[in-house]
Amino acid sequence: MAMATLARSVLVTGSNRGIGLELVRQLAASPRPPQHIFATCRDASGLRGKALQELAARHPSIKLIQLDTVDLPSIRGAMQTVETHLEGQGLNLLINNAGVGSQATLQSVDAQEMLATFAVNVVGPLQVAKEFLPLLEKAAKDAGTEGLSCSRAAIINVSSKVGSIGLCLGVLEAPMYPYRASKAAQNMVTRCLAEELRDKGILCAAIHPGWVKTDMGTEQAPMTVERSMQGILEVLGILSQETCGAFLDWEGNRLPW
Amino acid sequence: MAMATLARSVLVTGSNRGIGLELVRQLAASPRPPQHIFATCRDASGLRGKALQELAARHPSIKLIQLDTVDLPSIRGAMQTVETHLEGQGLNLLINNAGVGSQATLQSVDAQEMLATFAVNVVGPLQVAKEFLPLLEKAAKDAGTEGLSCSRAAIINVSSKVGSIGLCLGVLEAPMYPYRASKAAQNMVTRCLAEELRDKGILCAAIHPGWVKTDMGTEQAPMTVERSMQGILEVLGILSQETCGAFLDWEGNRLPW
Ligand SMILES: NC(=O)c1ccc[n+]([C@@H]2O[C@H](COP(=O)([O-])OP(=O)(O)OC[C@H]3O[C@@H](n4cnc5c(N)ncnc54)[C@H](OP(=O)(O)O)[C@@H]3O)[C@@H](O)[C@H]2O)c1
Ligand SMILES: NC(=O)c1ccc[n+]([C@@H]2O[C@H](COP(=O)([O-])OP(=O)(O)OC[C@H]3O[C@@H](n4cnc5c(N)ncnc54)[C@H](OP(=O)(O)O)[C@@H]3O)[C@@H](O)[C@H]2O)c1
Repeated sequence: MAMATLARSVLVTGSNRGIGLELVRQLAASPRPPQHIFATCRDASGLRGKALQELAARHPSIKLIQLDTVDLPSIRGAMQTVETHLEGQGLNLLINNAGVGSQATLQSVDAQEMLATFAVNVVGPLQVAKEFLPLLEKAAKDAGTEGLSCSRAAIINVSSKVGSIGLCLGVLEAPMYPYRASKAAQNMVTRCLAEELRDKGILCAAIHPGWVKTDMGTEQAPMTVERSMQGILEVLGILSQETCGAFLDWEGNRLPW
Repeated sequence: MAMATLARSVLVTGSNRGIGLELVRQLAASPRPPQHIFATCRDASGLRGKALQELAARHPSIKLIQLDTVDLPSIRGAMQTVETHLEGQGLNLLINNAGVGSQATLQSVDAQEMLATFAVNVVGPLQVAKEFLPLLEKAAKDAGTEGLSCSRAAIINVSSKVGSIGLCLGVLEAPMYPYRASKAAQNMVTRCLAEELRDKGILCAAIHPGWVKTDMGTEQAPMTVERSMQGILEVLGILSQETCGAFLDWEGNRLPW
């Protein structure tokens, strides 16, 4: 399927490995890549950022930027760097991908693990959205189009089917209290942002990437990152008013909250 | 409507004011009150517990116990005190009522408020459920009945309609990010507990009390605590296998996640 440019500028959090890295790779390799791909991670210059550094070295559209999603000064620093690169333009697409898993059971769960998981999976995406909002609003205003789309202005939160309260243990047998609760909370944040930002021309949606072979998904997962990201990029390309505030999987199917 | 005993023993968190206080009051005043009403709050002997102290002085079934739901040693201490009072019996009904509001908007929200709200509204109910689980399991085993009910063994989490991701801003216009996200996460915890504890004979459900005149609900609320608690106690009385894991309001209507 031939794709037009998804967006002129895209920012991805947690892009040094797994889903985030593959997203940046496919965006950069697309026939009409975004002008700016802000590939962010918390250890941009160190060992953990190595694969991303190598990728960035081959693609001038990729700008590698330090961004720890639970560190407000880091978010603000990244926002300023991005603003400088954009030279007065807005940011079209923010993809909140950074996240942590937690397998904790009722027996093993404790407050510290609950709160650490919430910090990364809920507070992180909210704070990043909040700090980048002026750049997203700028993109929405300058687009010269009506309607909502990822090419105009959008916030995409990478969620998970195991965060569906309706499906719950129907999806996977392990309760994983911190992870499930955090993704349900993240979905609420997505819904609130969607309602609040709709009138400003900014689309928000939650996307489940499927169960994917990454460090988090493990080798047991049935799907490669390549396939999942192809699906996600297609879905992002067709998001509109109708899907603003929705919870969709990598094939575009709606999931229950 | 004549009511049988709801349960032989009931524990309520945050029972020094608002919804928790009225729950304890109505339980104690019912024609066939529970044998043990464990009325817990974080400042049992101090000024904040005054109304509850006065109520307890009039009803020998009420035992006033210190329990701060975000302080693990306090939860464990309360569990031991309750165990002593129960003299070998189990605990039938745990009502996780303690909670905090937060009106924070996208503009005013910060990580600290998000995490403090999660701690009380999500981690608290989970930790309290976890620590009291042996007493609930004991009640479930000793009941000599099959099926799920509040008179056998149950965990009721007081939730809120504004925590429904499906309804979202349809309920109230203010986004209230920390409160909404925390109640959505709490609902996921309720659902996971329900699935996990069903086979042990323990029922779990989330109840929305309506918008009620309390410190949190404010004077603007359309409903008195008296009326809301009458409804809730009736709903608790008819919970069963069919409503295990459900999200119900004070009139027994199902709410979407
Ligand atoms: N894999 C699956 O099957 C699956 C299924 C459903 C949903 N998801 C979701 O997809 C997203 C990506 O998951 P993944 O499978 O790619 O996981 P992963 O392989 O474990 O990678 C997680 C990424 O998030 C980053 N990260 C964690 N905390 C961060 C922070 N505070 N600031 C910045 N970056 C941070 C990590 O950076 P470091 O290298 O610095 O740790 C890493 O780049 C997550 O939101 C996850 O919940 C995954
Ligand atoms: N009122 C409404 O309209 C409404 C609507 C929907 C849902 N709810 C839910 O109903 C529940 C009770 O609300 P309410 O209206 O009665 O609120 P409230 O009048 O503000 O009372 C809150 C209660 O929770 C206690 N609490 C807070 N943090 C605690 C902790 N760490 N440990 C122990 N107790 C703690 C408070 O104790 P202190 O006195 O020590 O602070 C107080 O007893 C909450 O879960 C709330 O979310 C209320």
